[in-house]
Amino acid sequence: MSHESSEKPAGDLTRTGMSLRHDREWDYELDRIVEAVEDRDADTVGLQFPEGLKRRGPGVIDDLRERLPEDVRVMMSGQPCYGACDLDTYLMKRTDVFVHFGHSPMKDSDKIIYVPLFSNVDPYPIMEEATEELADPDDDPDVGLVTTAQHMNVFDDMCDWLEERGYEVHTRRGDDRLTHEGQVLGCNYASADVGADQVLYVGGGKFHPLGLAMEHPDKHVVIADPVNNVVSVADTEKFMKQRYAAVHKAMDAESFGVIFCTKIGQGRWETAEEIVAANDDAYLITMDEVTPDRLRNFDVDAYVNTGCPRITTDDGPQFDRPMLTPQEYRIAVGEEPLDAMEFDTFHGTW
Amino acid sequence: MSHESSEKPAGDLTRTGMSLRHDREWDYELDRIVEAVEDRDADTVGLQFPEGLKRRGPGVIDDLRERLPEDVRVMMSGQPCYGACDLDTYLMKRTDVFVHFGHSPMKDSDKIIYVPLFSNVDPYPIMEEATEELADPDDDPDVGLVTTAQHMNVFDDMCDWLEERGYEVHTRRGDDRLTHEGQVLGCNYASADVGADQVLYVGGGKFHPLGLAMEHPDKHVVIADPVNNVVSVADTEKFMKQRYAAVHKAMDAESFGVIFCTKIGQGRWETAEEIVAANDDAYLITMDEVTPDRLRNFDVDAYVNTGCPRITTDDGPQFDRPMLTPQEYRIAVGEEPLDAMEFDTFHGTW
Repeated sequence: MSHESSEKPAGDLTRTGMSLRHDREWDYELDRIVEAVEDRDADTVGLQFPEGLKRRGPGVIDDLRERLPEDVRVMMSGQPCYGACDLDTYLMKRTDVFVHFGHSPMKDSDKIIYVPLFSNVDPYPIMEEATEELADPDDDPDVGLVTTAQHMNVFDDMCDWLEERGYEVHTRRGDDRLTHEGQVLGCNYASADVGADQVLYVGGGKFHPLGLAMEHPDKHVVIADPVNNVVSVADTEKFMKQRYAAVHKAMDAESFGVIFCTKIGQGRWETAEEIVAANDDAYLITMDEVTPDRLRNFDVDAYVNTGCPRITTDDGPQFDRPMLTPQEYRIAVGEEPLDAMEFDTFHGTW
Repeated sequence: MSHESSEKPAGDLTRTGMSLRHDREWDYELDRIVEAVEDRDADTVGLQFPEGLKRRGPGVIDDLRERLPEDVRVMMSGQPCYGACDLDTYLMKRTDVFVHFGHSPMKDSDKIIYVPLFSNVDPYPIMEEATEELADPDDDPDVGLVTTAQHMNVFDDMCDWLEERGYEVHTRRGDDRLTHEGQVLGCNYASADVGADQVLYVGGGKFHPLGLAMEHPDKHVVIADPVNNVVSVADTEKFMKQRYAAVHKAMDAESFGVIFCTKIGQGRWETAEEIVAANDDAYLITMDEVTPDRLRNFDVDAYVNTGCPRITTDDGPQFDRPMLTPQEYRIAVGEEPLDAMEFDTFHGTW
């Protein structure tokens, strides 16, 4: 669940803006931040970076300090940040200008400056390689194309590139949780609901394409990873085995901890409430970060996580009790058949 | 930093109230909670247990459900809880009745029902043993007596017990952070500021007496632990070596992450602000839980923790960079001499 940045030589920055002394790879849009400080006559600026970019924080603060009045205090969030729902609302409320880097907004807010961090890595060499894993366009030209926020700036170009090679590219905006056409989130693959049996994912890591393949088990998901320079085909077998194992173990559970996540955009109150109302052996637990350490002291036999589904699927084995999605819980207690199992996603959770 | 409960056979409950089906050791004062639900016509009840008692949560909820109208929803906090400053303000704001178990209030609030959990363990056998580590009353009768919230209900009796044996017992209420005479917190030992060279601590574990000994290095601190049934003398040598090692390492640091903790009762804004204002290589980081995982991704050479001092002293070695108290930072950058080093405490931080 980390958002990594590449360590490749820097190319042209993909957006206008100053080039940074400390970091030539990303454009932090310092002009926009400095302007907001002036406009609002701000005393305090809060910055929130995704995990993979926290190490750049001090450098960005140095650059901002050079350009801001001396009495403006710049601080950064130390809260975990893996996505837009990890918004540090404490820091947001207590600073005059608050900047969230690297994730596109789920909901627009005047309070927050969202700075997209577009990768300047060239995706085409690895896309070229990835076409070998796609069907020959003469046999099946239909292909879905999806990517993450970091590559959205070249999404149209990537479509053109594929079309020039004979593919018919299918794209979709997805639902309200998604800002851009073709964008995927770890918890939302509505943009891949397209009329194509194969989907090309362009982006770093396997976190997103594995979620996509779990939600669309009938689709062939090809991964073109320009960050690690590798092509692969998403294989969910390991995850699926873990899911079935967790459900089977939870069938013997006599008590359930039902987790309601208090993070913005992760609250499924009705889902949690429904389970607890119907089961005397289910106990509601509210928390922000859902980690093995925090749950270790509760004495229940299994957990149902109504928060981020990726905690369940990706971190599940790290918990000392079975951790289920809401649907997996219904299967475990016999309300749904085992073969109904689907990947848990956030569609329209706002 | 865990608040443990004993697993001894139950004795009489020390306060009136029902005896629990699931737990005969502590009195959760269910009557008081049920009454508050009726008075406020509450729909929701939030419970917060210290780490060591989270496993009792489901049992307490079972007992409450039996006594409350069926549509009242009871839930518990999954946030880490080691003390009164770990108050789950999210759950507090979103439930009609909010109960915090096991810690005495730092500040009174009508919104919160504080249920003290008094231990029913008998302290006198182990106090008897502990007198062997104290000076003979004929040579030096003066002894300070301190304990934790869990044993406050027998504090006066323990004083009497010692006086009967020839000691002159010195006790003190401490400052505003402390609720009771003779009470210590992990971050506050003002109640041991008494005219005696020896202090008897009665309570479970070494967490509190080690803090006490660090703050009062000139006092002989005897530990009578009725929970683990063991007597010892507080020895801070290991901790002190770790502190000096951290300061020495930090002398080479070129950049500092200055942590401002957002928890209620842990915010030392001016301390943090002062460091950052005076040092161009210091960067302000705001967060609630201060853990090694959360700091790993920042690229600074050392940390200054203005939040809970026990994170620094007790968990310090778990962080991958030196973690300093504010004073240790001043020593590391040459503003104070090494031999000025004192234990960091919260006195009057509200």
